[in-house]
Amino acid sequence: MNSLLFLVLPLEFKGMGDSTITADVEAVAGDIEAMEIRGAATIADAAAQALRTQAEESEAASAGAFRTEMRAAARHLHDTRPTAVSLPNALRYVLQRMEGATVSELQANIRAAADEFCHRLDRAQEDLGEVGANRLRDGDVVMTHCHSTDALACVEAAVEQGKDLSAIVKETRPRNQGHITAEQLRELGVDVTLIVDSAARRYLDDADHVLVGADSIAADGSVINKIGTSGLAVNARERGVPIMVAAQTIKLHPATMTGHTVEIEMRDEQEVVSDEDRAEIGDIAVENPAFDVTPPRHVDAIVTERGQFPPESIVTLMRELFGQGPTEPWNEE
Amino acid sequence: MNSLLFLVLPLEFKGMGDSTITADVEAVAGDIEAMEIRGAATIADAAAQALRTQAEESEAASAGAFRTEMRAAARHLHDTRPTAVSLPNALRYVLQRMEGATVSELQANIRAAADEFCHRLDRAQEDLGEVGANRLRDGDVVMTHCHSTDALACVEAAVEQGKDLSAIVKETRPRNQGHITAEQLRELGVDVTLIVDSAARRYLDDADHVLVGADSIAADGSVINKIGTSGLAVNARERGVPIMVAAQTIKLHPATMTGHTVEIEMRDEQEVVSDEDRAEIGDIAVENPAFDVTPPRHVDAIVTERGQFPPESIVTLMRELFGQGPTEPWNEE
Amino acid sequence: MNSLLFLVLPLEFKGMGDSTITADVEAVAGDIEAMEIRGAATIADAAAQALRTQAEESEAASAGAFRTEMRAAARHLHDTRPTAVSLPNALRYVLQRMEGATVSELQANIRAAADEFCHRLDRAQEDLGEVGANRLRDGDVVMTHCHSTDALACVEAAVEQGKDLSAIVKETRPRNQGHITAEQLRELGVDVTLIVDSAARRYLDDADHVLVGADSIAADGSVINKIGTSGLAVNARERGVPIMVAAQTIKLHPATMTGHTVEIEMRDEQEVVSDEDRAEIGDIAVENPAFDVTPPRHVDAIVTERGQFPPESIVTLMRELFGQGPTEPWNEE
Amino acid sequence: MNSLLFLVLPLEFKGMGDSTITADVEAVAGDIEAMEIRGAATIADAAAQALRTQAEESEAASAGAFRTEMRAAARHLHDTRPTAVSLPNALRYVLQRMEGATVSELQANIRAAADEFCHRLDRAQEDLGEVGANRLRDGDVVMTHCHSTDALACVEAAVEQGKDLSAIVKETRPRNQGHITAEQLRELGVDVTLIVDSAARRYLDDADHVLVGADSIAADGSVINKIGTSGLAVNARERGVPIMVAAQTIKLHPATMTGHTVEIEMRDEQEVVSDEDRAEIGDIAVENPAFDVTPPRHVDAIVTERGQFPPESIVTLMRELFGQGPTEPWNEE
Amino acid sequence: MNSLLFLVLPLEFKGMGDSTITADVEAVAGDIEAMEIRGAATIADAAAQALRTQAEESEAASAGAFRTEMRAAARHLHDTRPTAVSLPNALRYVLQRMEGATVSELQANIRAAADEFCHRLDRAQEDLGEVGANRLRDGDVVMTHCHSTDALACVEAAVEQGKDLSAIVKETRPRNQGHITAEQLRELGVDVTLIVDSAARRYLDDADHVLVGADSIAADGSVINKIGTSGLAVNARERGVPIMVAAQTIKLHPATMTGHTVEIEMRDEQEVVSDEDRAEIGDIAVENPAFDVTPPRHVDAIVTERGQFPPESIVTLMRELFGQGPTEPWNEE
Amino acid sequence: MNSLLFLVLPLEFKGMGDSTITADVEAVAGDIEAMEIRGAATIADAAAQALRTQAEESEAASAGAFRTEMRAAARHLHDTRPTAVSLPNALRYVLQRMEGATVSELQANIRAAADEFCHRLDRAQEDLGEVGANRLRDGDVVMTHCHSTDALACVEAAVEQGKDLSAIVKETRPRNQGHITAEQLRELGVDVTLIVDSAARRYLDDADHVLVGADSIAADGSVINKIGTSGLAVNARERGVPIMVAAQTIKLHPATMTGHTVEIEMRDEQEVVSDEDRAEIGDIAVENPAFDVTPPRHVDAIVTERGQFPPESIVTLMRELFGQGPTEPWNEE
Repeated sequence: MNSLLFLVLPLEFKGMGDSTITADVEAVAGDIEAMEIRGAATIADAAAQALRTQAEESEAASAGAFRTEMRAAARHLHDTRPTAVSLPNALRYVLQRMEGATVSELQANIRAAADEFCHRLDRAQEDLGEVGANRLRDGDVVMTHCHSTDALACVEAAVEQGKDLSAIVKETRPRNQGHITAEQLRELGVDVTLIVDSAARRYLDDADHVLVGADSIAADGSVINKIGTSGLAVNARERGVPIMVAAQTIKLHPATMTGHTVEIEMRDEQEVVSDEDRAEIGDIAVENPAFDVTPPRHVDAIVTERGQFPPESIVTLMRELFGQGPTEPWNEE
Repeated sequence: MNSLLFLVLPLEFKGMGDSTITADVEAVAGDIEAMEIRGAATIADAAAQALRTQAEESEAASAGAFRTEMRAAARHLHDTRPTAVSLPNALRYVLQRMEGATVSELQANIRAAADEFCHRLDRAQEDLGEVGANRLRDGDVVMTHCHSTDALACVEAAVEQGKDLSAIVKETRPRNQGHITAEQLRELGVDVTLIVDSAARRYLDDADHVLVGADSIAADGSVINKIGTSGLAVNARERGVPIMVAAQTIKLHPATMTGHTVEIEMRDEQEVVSDEDRAEIGDIAVENPAFDVTPPRHVDAIVTERGQFPPESIVTLMRELFGQGPTEPWNEE
Repeated sequence: MNSLLFLVLPLEFKGMGDSTITADVEAVAGDIEAMEIRGAATIADAAAQALRTQAEESEAASAGAFRTEMRAAARHLHDTRPTAVSLPNALRYVLQRMEGATVSELQANIRAAADEFCHRLDRAQEDLGEVGANRLRDGDVVMTHCHSTDALACVEAAVEQGKDLSAIVKETRPRNQGHITAEQLRELGVDVTLIVDSAARRYLDDADHVLVGADSIAADGSVINKIGTSGLAVNARERGVPIMVAAQTIKLHPATMTGHTVEIEMRDEQEVVSDEDRAEIGDIAVENPAFDVTPPRHVDAIVTERGQFPPESIVTLMRELFGQGPTEPWNEE
Repeated sequence: MNSLLFLVLPLEFKGMGDSTITADVEAVAGDIEAMEIRGAATIADAAAQALRTQAEESEAASAGAFRTEMRAAARHLHDTRPTAVSLPNALRYVLQRMEGATVSELQANIRAAADEFCHRLDRAQEDLGEVGANRLRDGDVVMTHCHSTDALACVEAAVEQGKDLSAIVKETRPRNQGHITAEQLRELGVDVTLIVDSAARRYLDDADHVLVGADSIAADGSVINKIGTSGLAVNARERGVPIMVAAQTIKLHPATMTGHTVEIEMRDEQEVVSDEDRAEIGDIAVENPAFDVTPPRHVDAIVTERGQFPPESIVTLMRELFGQGPTEPWNEE
Repeated sequence: MNSLLFLVLPLEFKGMGDSTITADVEAVAGDIEAMEIRGAATIADAAAQALRTQAEESEAASAGAFRTEMRAAARHLHDTRPTAVSLPNALRYVLQRMEGATVSELQANIRAAADEFCHRLDRAQEDLGEVGANRLRDGDVVMTHCHSTDALACVEAAVEQGKDLSAIVKETRPRNQGHITAEQLRELGVDVTLIVDSAARRYLDDADHVLVGADSIAADGSVINKIGTSGLAVNARERGVPIMVAAQTIKLHPATMTGHTVEIEMRDEQEVVSDEDRAEIGDIAVENPAFDVTPPRHVDAIVTERGQFPPESIVTLMRELFGQGPTEPWNEE
Repeated sequence: MNSLLFLVLPLEFKGMGDSTITADVEAVAGDIEAMEIRGAATIADAAAQALRTQAEESEAASAGAFRTEMRAAARHLHDTRPTAVSLPNALRYVLQRMEGATVSELQANIRAAADEFCHRLDRAQEDLGEVGANRLRDGDVVMTHCHSTDALACVEAAVEQGKDLSAIVKETRPRNQGHITAEQLRELGVDVTLIVDSAARRYLDDADHVLVGADSIAADGSVINKIGTSGLAVNARERGVPIMVAAQTIKLHPATMTGHTVEIEMRDEQEVVSDEDRAEIGDIAVENPAFDVTPPRHVDAIVTERGQFPPESIVTLMRELFGQGPTEPWNEE
């Protein structure tokens, strides 16, 4: 019962009290830590812009000093919330492009990298939706699990392409996010059939695609998503239905490139059973993991704003966007 | 969405108004039709005993007339509720043993067959429990789906054998029969962990057995059970966990020997989503099938009061108990 | 290239010249050998009736002598065409029921057995059709391979039950028996789509059943049928489409109970490529096997006039109908 | 590491001191217990003959008393070595045929049953060899694991049929029984290639059959055989090589019909590593299980003296030979 | 029956009438549109050279103007035949390398890119053949489907390496391209055995490789090839035979990087059945798709002139050769 | 039996006698040939340093002459031992980075590349260990096959991270390298259970990971490792246990990028059976391959010092590190 996956993080708060870190970086770091800046895209955007400001305001005397300063700023931002998957991605994207022989060259490249990152982030969901929509054909039926704006973006884009789609929506216990998905699909004009999670295999024969989002994606091609995704994927494979995961690249989990596994959050037991019911049942344990892990062999395609990829190739995209070394760029020497 | 399985039944109410049918048979038939006699075991017991009374009170002048009379009585009972799986099994068991050259020989054999059937029925769950318990080892963890007294009988017998068992109990939406299972397992002293249905694959790695009951079992080895069983079985196979179905032989579906498929009941939509939630979501369909079909290749053993069987062999037991011909015995000439 | 399956047959013409064999048996044996009696059902019927006549005309002085005489007659019939699958089945069915302490008891039982066999044979295809039809639902699409009157009997019975069916018909190179199937399905009012054999996997997603006949069926559950069946079954399993084999019990291959494999006929090369084309291509070999072997794990149900069976259980039916011993009944002592 | 299978046996020594048990039964029971009678076939033969003597020497005054006496004798024999798979089979075979209304009828049937059992036992290996040989074709290559006289009997019979066979022989650590197999195959004139166990998958592409024996076979179709069989079978399935198990019917494990699992013997650690090597390695554990369990889906055919069976059907043969009830016949009332 | 895959293309004829487009580009565009330039390699070569001429003859005053001009030329060429897989690849290859700060730098890079592309195209089939040949061993048997010059190049190179190969050639209905393959293999000195398509699974046990070409390859690793390829691949996997796809990189389908699916051409029904036969059969439909889609999990290696790749990695090569962005380079701003 | 994989190598000793090759390169080449320099890492290091010296001592007058000289030196080194997997990798790594317009630029880049290569090589096993350790969780059980310092580095790093691990160690016949693994794991404080190779599937249910090294890794994602790895991986997949391969990037086999297969060494027969045992057994063959090939679909992750990769993506890393062209860099023009 205790076989959860833990993320072992090297917690090194070297950056603290570093006088070269700008007020802007400090402010952003504080807001992320206080969760006043939250949400994968918002965090990533703020972090990239903070690095841009750091670069612009730097008074470093040499290229070497500048690099050290930038790494310190990145480390400081990173350490505020080390489990947020999009934060290190933003930092890695910018630092990965810190090239140049002079401070001004370095500054220019940091600025360009941060701007490019933010620009792409801004368009990512729409671009991703276009890619996913291209996989859907007129008349197709998609089966959904949980609620994912990335997945819905694919349906929305397909509807805008003039395709007529239907959906089989799993309610997704314990929090019934399927109700939100059902409502939003209805608003897009999609015919919806709601089912309990256990009815999925029965209705897979009526589905042309399984379409889900992702909480994060690992370098070995595994997809971490709402509990129930992995069991659905096994059945979809058995019934011959392709499985499509919609995920912006900020969901690619950088620590997994070096073998780190992803911590699975255990949620409140009351989501599963009310206190009254539990009292009536007697002395039982309740386990309520938020996510599970689907191995790449049970997924057909990961759809991102950079195009679609077989899950076994997503590591190539991770390395291209976020760096290839075995160490984290803010800890490099 | 319309790929349900329908049971095509030859409805021939030949038996109606037949003067040779005894008052006792008529009374039992009426009670079954009015659902005053209900429950698989109760119906089967009443039907066998009605045939016994019919045989005892028969005034047939010849062996041939006696046989015709018995078939008419059986047909009359059968037609009251043709979809009840245990009713034709009781009738088939008794008629299958209607052998003899004289009326008195026939009467004796019918009496013996009815008594044997009722005697076995009486002990079936306990005998089944012993068989199932023998498959469980001390320290094992079983994963359950829905609520089945046959499945619980296996655990109970194992506990009585001194084995220490734990259970992972799926809540089994939409009606949460898992809560009843959890409660009864607690009463047996079994450690229980309750999970949502979607968490099953995640916890299969902690389970030594999947243990479920059956609504009915088909001649091709398919197991008809609570919606979600088939998806669970596919995942259990993928994770290397054996799947054990506990089912008394009255659950063996006689019409399937001749290829008939089993009608899957569609239940009320309000079990899945409340009227208020549905109003909020918008104009959606809800599908709420009660059962699904697990093919034999995803099941390891069917445990009955007659011993355990690979699902591919259950047809042999069906033929032994309930007859081998392609026609129903009450319709034979 | 030389891995064909050979039927190793113990050729023992002990029966020749045996004076106790009746003229009727001799005549039938001659006609079978000369192929004037041909076709699985016709051969089986003639052989059973010949044994009946043999029994009636027997002048055996003791039960022992009678048994010896019957075995000699059966052996004589059998040896005329040892590879015809239905011939030994007819002989086995009758000899299997040769019980009794006196000659007259034995005669009566032989008569009854032969009559029963012929009666059942007469109704077999229609009974089988009813069983198979029960597996088909209104609106279903069946995919066929080659031409099989047993398979068509299932469709015909379903149409008579009022079901509306469609068919995807594989042309079945090299002899295009799919054309005959297509024509006969059209005559039954079934919508037909004709495809080349290679298009099968592409159209399996539109099919609810694969429905084929059988040349013969082995005790290990393997189905010997028109070349291409096994490859179709593997794909149907991969796409989640159930595979149904329609075969009268005279197709159950008795020699396989003792491990014998089934000889696969190699047909004329000109069926595959014309002499002119071959001359143009150059010096190539052509292989043209008539049948292939589908293992039981790729088949869902075998439909017979005795009901449906998982292929792994068909050996039980073979033993029930045609005997259980390791030796052939006409060679027993 | 402690997930071994235990055979839970109801140890009821009711028969002890029963004055009706004959001296012959007592003597045989003593010899079995003292392991002076040993080996599956020898034990089975002695037990059946002891029951025969018991029946002949019985002074029971009624059919009922006779039955009680026979059950007591059987129980007494059984309890001497409850884990020997062939002993209960012999007892069950004979008691299963204890039918009749009078003592003399009962005696005759017991005598006949015991004689039949011993007669068949005597011929079993040769008959089995014939069946297995029929599955082998001229030129075939078989891969063997461990040493099994039943498996070798198949090869021997095939060689006598004039077939030219080759063998790939796994050495079968830790006791290298493959060396014995290699030697005996050489004596039969079979070309032998010896490999280490780990090389099996590499050479499966050169093999036409995997051919193994069995320690015992369970009612759910599982094959208990020398450690390594199950892993070989999984690989053989993955490479498309059929798996054939040669096992006389005395290997069918009767207690498994009621769900009992089979105890796996743990053997001496020194078979795996010498004391010196172990001292050098340091403080390690060694596990040396003698057998493992292969599920029926990884086996193609079980070859017995009664013919071949898909493993899923072997329960039918068990019930036919050794009884169908959920209770052991010596404990019935 | 209507589940075909459609390629949704954004048709934007922005380039028309653009005065900066050279006469050479106009001429090539016209010839491609008129299908006077046809064939994957010929089209690709002409398009790359047209871009080269455009660059050389450009009178653009700034780097920005030059880029705009080149994109317009590419767009104009692309729009003549948007479904030709090699055309956008040539354009993407060249535009992907349009780097530089000045017009002359840009011109030099375009020239180099176009020359490099054409040079590689010229050698591609031979280079590919070398790579594929290296996977084949002396004595191997390959099974082919349809006719592919890329696949034959592998065999030819292997023969030149001195390897002795045999081939099992599927005739490939409906157009029997297998006859051409057989003839060309014979000319290479390869022993050929011709079989009907349905016999493939039967002869896979004699094959060491399945070797096919590709019509195009998608970014998700799917192989689009002659109808029948996907069913063959499923069977090859089931029989343990590796599947090798030979395809030059111009077959990599660029639109699939952004999720577009590939349109499957439906060909004339008369290829499947003559008008006379069809009239005789009655009123049937005929479906004749030219290609099918094999998912990457059923393919072992894609062999290109750039080396071999697991199909799941081919997207990396596509991005390297033809660009990584989600938009088409001629539509970028 | 003769289906071994052969590496076809173009042996072109063009470099011999080339006066531009430095004495240092000659000396290293001689030592590698004489096997005085041996071991994958040692060879790679020496080769890279020899190229560095060659560059430093070059007297080439032009960039072109310098390139020719470097290629000749690399070719000379390569030809000394063309089957050593790490040698061409070192050469490719350095030559791949031979960029620049002038001799001095080229010299600087070669120096940097050689230094970088040697620096990384020096840290590779430790870096790899960190990555692998991150995949292991506290309390996990790993199953090992053979002896691999890369695999042990993962365990060592995990132990240093404070994780408590256990190990099930396969003895790995015929040379029992498992004894070394067991001893070294004990020294790390890991609990060890030693088993025979055939017991692996039985104990897979107790394992959380299979952890093995690699002899080399091919571009199609196949892992070449000690005989028995592929069979273990098939069983691990069947039991749901993830398979992790630890391999430094010098194990990536460059020739496989162009389709070359890897030669499997056949070792001495006496490792398998002693001469005395063999004499006793009789005239048998013995096959003793050192390695086998595990296809990528049976492996979950390859762990390198550059991070972890799904096996299907390892070709991307190979191309990044060692070049992308279809030809070997020392043979390029």
